Amino acid sequence: MSLAQLGEFGAIGLFREVLAERPANDVVQPLIGIGDDAALWRPTAGHGALETTDLLVEEVHFSRRWATWYEVGWKAIAVNVSDVAAMGGQPRAAFISAGLRTDMSQSELLELYRGLADCSAEYGVAILGGDTVASPAAAVINVALYAETLDDSAAVLRRDAAKPGDAVGVSGPLGASAAYLRAQDPAFRAAHLHPEPRVELGQRLLRAGVRCAMDVSDGLLADLGKLCAASSAGAVVRAAAVPIASAVVEKLPQDALRLALTGGEDYELLVCGPENVLTRCGLTIIGEVIAGPGVHVLDAAGQPLSFPHAGYDAFIGEGC
Amino acid sequence: MSLAQLGEFGAIGLFREVLAERPANDVVQPLIGIGDDAALWRPTAGHGALETTDLLVEEVHFSRRWATWYEVGWKAIAVNVSDVAAMGGQPRAAFISAGLRTDMSQSELLELYRGLADCSAEYGVAILGGDTVASPAAAVINVALYAETLDDSAAVLRRDAAKPGDAVGVSGPLGASAAYLRAQDPAFRAAHLHPEPRVELGQRLLRAGVRCAMDVSDGLLADLGKLCAASSAGAVVRAAAVPIASAVVEKLPQDALRLALTGGEDYELLVCGPENVLTRCGLTIIGEVIAGPGVHVLDAAGQPLSFPHAGYDAFIGEGC
Repeated sequence: MSLAQLGEFGAIGLFREVLAERPANDVVQPLIGIGDDAALWRPTAGHGALETTDLLVEEVHFSRRWATWYEVGWKAIAVNVSDVAAMGGQPRAAFISAGLRTDMSQSELLELYRGLADCSAEYGVAILGGDTVASPAAAVINVALYAETLDDSAAVLRRDAAKPGDAVGVSGPLGASAAYLRAQDPAFRAAHLHPEPRVELGQRLLRAGVRCAMDVSDGLLADLGKLCAASSAGAVVRAAAVPIASAVVEKLPQDALRLALTGGEDYELLVCGPENVLTRCGLTIIGEVIAGPGVHVLDAAGQPLSFPHAGYDAFIGEGC
Repeated sequence: MSLAQLGEFGAIGLFREVLAERPANDVVQPLIGIGDDAALWRPTAGHGALETTDLLVEEVHFSRRWATWYEVGWKAIAVNVSDVAAMGGQPRAAFISAGLRTDMSQSELLELYRGLADCSAEYGVAILGGDTVASPAAAVINVALYAETLDDSAAVLRRDAAKPGDAVGVSGPLGASAAYLRAQDPAFRAAHLHPEPRVELGQRLLRAGVRCAMDVSDGLLADLGKLCAASSAGAVVRAAAVPIASAVVEKLPQDALRLALTGGEDYELLVCGPENVLTRCGLTIIGEVIAGPGVHVLDAAGQPLSFPHAGYDAFIGEGC
């Protein structure tokens, strides 16, 4: 059976069945969930509200040639959860818009829904609403994610809070996600299609007093550049200190450093703060924040390295 | 200059300029707005949270052949505001995802942004975040709208609260929006491309004790059918009582009733409750809620009328 036969309300019914198979989410108990004009819930008293949204477009952000519908669903939730992780927040509720081709089969639709539902369940996110429409030219999936701060202080991890002297740390090995776009090797697949956002780490950093972070989505150097610009600061990165995914070093040795520095979609956290706190939280220190502008990459001899494209721009193209 | 030259961050900068031209929104003063991984704000203490999302796809929900980019932007916000109006809520903050073609010009982009910004300003909505990406095959605009209940009672207008004996009312003339899809006559244009959601009316109904409403988006009969199904009830509609937009009666007399009953995208409120309250709030009474299932349309002689398609299904097609 195709979507054209199933219809919009058949599709929504199928999604409700998939969601009902999973354990109820304890965090948000909606007063009104899927099926009315809007969802209704009670925010946690006193806590700050966070929201982020990300749009995935077929043949731009994903392709059925190298991703299953399950993986597309997982990633659509995960990239938003990663944004909340990068603020030190707690994800709560997702609103999913799906533009789908009418020839999509019921089993493909189920795969997509299971990916969305599994990643949501993994991170304590209740799916409370959405919109399901036809998109004949290319499938699109948008997720808007509502989240909350940990307490009533409204303290979060921000991009504009880096200070000269801060250490710069990253939460895990980089490069494998971008490597998957280059070579669809199974060793790179999970990094690209099953990212596991650092929600607990973001909260731990915030509790430890850290105030500056973002997630690595457009490429380490591009993202660090944005963080530095927002903070009116600069940074020095020691290339030899940047953790590179071992499969990338092994299989694409020539490109490994460039993929790690400019590839993007790693969904690790990029954090600035006191070196001892970052180290205690398990981050790898890769450099320091400095007073002047710009991001400077140095090789093992302390000489500057340059990269023609620092990372990904949605309209201009990508660096890897 | 095209989007390919302007780039993602140029586009975001342009949007911030457009938003800065407009008066600051008093309702939500974000602690963090556009530019970080997520927006941060303080919800109004004690009030319930509402959220809805709607996705517009080029050549499905809009076409550049009969809509300006300004109108696309206005409508993308308005259709979401209408969902909040239908709950009796107060719109607060919008999160906008735009998938755009790289050959879009800067002036087209400005038009789109001005439409989004003007409708948001009109309804007290702060644009707090979004995602701007390339979508080569067809432009897509998704809006997620955060709103709040009027007080801490968490009372809202719901679809599932109709009771046998309730009057059924609508807030304004129907059919002109769907008529515009049939004939791109300027007389129908505003109804289709510049809808003005009934936010104040929704709140007034709620304060008057009404508890059941939805907005007319997929067609009066289809939407009333959904409302009745959610309420485990049925309805009788007197065709002669249904308000039809005068331009439709004048220019498409043969199709006027069908367009009003099944056309859709009217963004008026469909309300069930005590007849005297609905009348006092300015609604036109078109029928009653009954105990049995189904929506029954009667002609002036009390004979049943039938319509092959009650309204719009995203995948199966439309009734008008």
